Amino acid sequence: LAQRLHGIAPTIFSEMSALAMRTGSVNLGQGFPDVDGPPAVIAEAVRALEGGQNQYAPGLGVPALRQAVARHQHRHYGIELDPDIEVVVTTGATEGIAAALLGLVDPGDEIIVLEPYYDSYVAMIQMAGGVRRPVTLRAPDFRLDPDELRAAVTDRTQFVLLNSPHNPTGTVLTRAELQAVADLAVERDLVVITDEVYEHLTYDAEHVPISTLPGMAERTLTLSSAGKSYSFTGWKVGWASGPRELVQAVLAAKQWLTFTSGSPLQPAVAHALDEAPGFPRQLAAALRERRDRLCAGLTEVGLDVRVPQGTYFATTDISALGWADGLAFCLALPERAGVVAIPHQVFHDGPAGDQLVRWAFCKEPDVVEEGLRRLAAAD
Amino acid sequence: LAQRLHGIAPTIFSEMSALAMRTGSVNLGQGFPDVDGPPAVIAEAVRALEGGQNQYAPGLGVPALRQAVARHQHRHYGIELDPDIEVVVTTGATEGIAAALLGLVDPGDEIIVLEPYYDSYVAMIQMAGGVRRPVTLRAPDFRLDPDELRAAVTDRTQFVLLNSPHNPTGTVLTRAELQAVADLAVERDLVVITDEVYEHLTYDAEHVPISTLPGMAERTLTLSSAGKSYSFTGWKVGWASGPRELVQAVLAAKQWLTFTSGSPLQPAVAHALDEAPGFPRQLAAALRERRDRLCAGLTEVGLDVRVPQGTYFATTDISALGWADGLAFCLALPERAGVVAIPHQVFHDGPAGDQLVRWAFCKEPDVVEEGLRRLAAAD
Ligand SMILES: CSCCC(=O)C(=O)O
Ligand SMILES: CSCCC(=O)C(=O)O
Repeated sequence: LAQRLHGIAPTIFSEMSALAMRTGSVNLGQGFPDVDGPPAVIAEAVRALEGGQNQYAPGLGVPALRQAVARHQHRHYGIELDPDIEVVVTTGATEGIAAALLGLVDPGDEIIVLEPYYDSYVAMIQMAGGVRRPVTLRAPDFRLDPDELRAAVTDRTQFVLLNSPHNPTGTVLTRAELQAVADLAVERDLVVITDEVYEHLTYDAEHVPISTLPGMAERTLTLSSAGKSYSFTGWKVGWASGPRELVQAVLAAKQWLTFTSGSPLQPAVAHALDEAPGFPRQLAAALRERRDRLCAGLTEVGLDVRVPQGTYFATTDISALGWADGLAFCLALPERAGVVAIPHQVFHDGPAGDQLVRWAFCKEPDVVEEGLRRLAAAD
Repeated sequence: LAQRLHGIAPTIFSEMSALAMRTGSVNLGQGFPDVDGPPAVIAEAVRALEGGQNQYAPGLGVPALRQAVARHQHRHYGIELDPDIEVVVTTGATEGIAAALLGLVDPGDEIIVLEPYYDSYVAMIQMAGGVRRPVTLRAPDFRLDPDELRAAVTDRTQFVLLNSPHNPTGTVLTRAELQAVADLAVERDLVVITDEVYEHLTYDAEHVPISTLPGMAERTLTLSSAGKSYSFTGWKVGWASGPRELVQAVLAAKQWLTFTSGSPLQPAVAHALDEAPGFPRQLAAALRERRDRLCAGLTEVGLDVRVPQGTYFATTDISALGWADGLAFCLALPERAGVVAIPHQVFHDGPAGDQLVRWAFCKEPDVVEEGLRRLAAAD
């Protein structure tokens, strides 16, 4: 194994989904829905498959999808993009992150990143030789502390890697919090890489793309995907958008990582963005009910719940149940209760997440109920 | 742009396909067929899409595909693989190469690689901090010279990156040539990474997987994909197989590059491998006729043709036409003739490929004919 991967554990999501399978547990771990997105979008993929869209897509992605992404950004946020130079299609946002970091980060560059981290950020920062500088979203509110943000900056800081709505905490950064990041980015001439895959899955908060703040369009690379917005997590069709130089850097790396992918799926995602623009908000409305049901149920079994404003996930503090170690709790849970959840612990350098556990509510209502029933029976 | 990408030009295939589009040229450049693979395989992808296989595949790939890959390797080559630990699905062989190099190569490691190179090898070796040590397949025969091979080894050599059938020359390495590589690998304890995406597209030669040579199974990582064998280049479903440690290294990197991809396409490729095992050889028979037609036509227009034993591509020497620079020739060709081809030049460090140009015959017969007509009219 190459040194760049030393000390990086396998992704917790694969580990915990495998554990769920092995133990027959209700999987409230890895974030994916049990029910697929719009049948009309599937029908479009079928049309592409049967209509001969099965050879290499262009490196940038099929034009129809790049145009649909540009229209999406304009419709929702008033952002203007040239689909021929300011948008590139990626193999999900995961490849967007990998290509952005490999394409932009030099060894020794420092990257400010929200903690708890999404696990691929840590791995890819290390693979790119970068140095992570965490800014911790702390329980119980998981808000961004502007002082902590400023304290993380050094002379080597080059990037901020942001995600809002934030996985795993469910925090949706406010305009004021984003403005603190923007102020710093402008002042220190930083590039912001922002992962907005949960952009439409918000509940009591408005998602503000940081690229829409003054002075930010020219320094922000925005990543998103169809996986969460349209309930097709397995298609792995995402995109990166922003200024030409940043998009070109993503392309420069991405062309060697996968070249292109998902030719017949790309036109279907274009169709989704153009023809089903209301789907993600309908999904959010349904998810909101499940969030409420999950949070109520988790409270009933004695957990201390933080109700999220966005994403697929709710977080609990397990110390109320007498547990001190979230990883131990999650490893014991399949046996104890037949349920799988995700410990925040693995997304932290320090101890701030040790007693926090993440639960997914993107599952069907009866799955959420069954999970809660099992938890109630176990405790 | 990060330093690891400095000096790496955009992939020639995207450049030349874009040029073909812009100029309305017949595209004998990038290797992809005009006609898709088996309708039954498409039907299987439709079944997966409509049957709910649209969420994340496991990190290793869907079990049915890993099992089908293991059966494929056994059926064709007598290779035994445990599909649960010795096979990992990748986003085409491109991701296999990227993940293998990022997962295995440390800065300063030397990698022996056949020249002319496939372009992603050079880029990914550089991105991994490795050092390429070319062994040149020289015109007119493009055979591997065992002395040149031995001369490329140093104390820092850790890997051989092989591709046979070889793109762009069309060489299929003989058992004796492979044995020379194997002898060296065993003697110097090297790992061999072998890209065998054209394994079934051979014409007058037998493809021998180097992993089947004595002592090689335990040190060979084999990459392949469905793109070329089944005429679905846009699906980007590939796989890496071999000893557990090597497959785990691929997975360790790949989980952060894309996590997984192509959920609904993976079961269709499993179906292709299991239910249409004869398709690739039928395709090869059809390609053989096109190869012969293309080679005859290129000879007629005065080019010096090297008839390939495998792949989608034939190579010509353009000096007979009075040209000295293949890149200049290829850049002028759309204007001169309305045809796009690929210069070997960009796959060489030295001048050995300056007068060599690659032509794809994986196109429909009438496309090949139209390309030849245009070339004849131009000369
Ligand atoms: C890429 S697998 C993980 C899915 C996800 O986003 C999550 O569970 O956090
Ligand atoms: C990955 S695009 C290039 C396709 C191909 O293998 C070639 O043309 O050599």
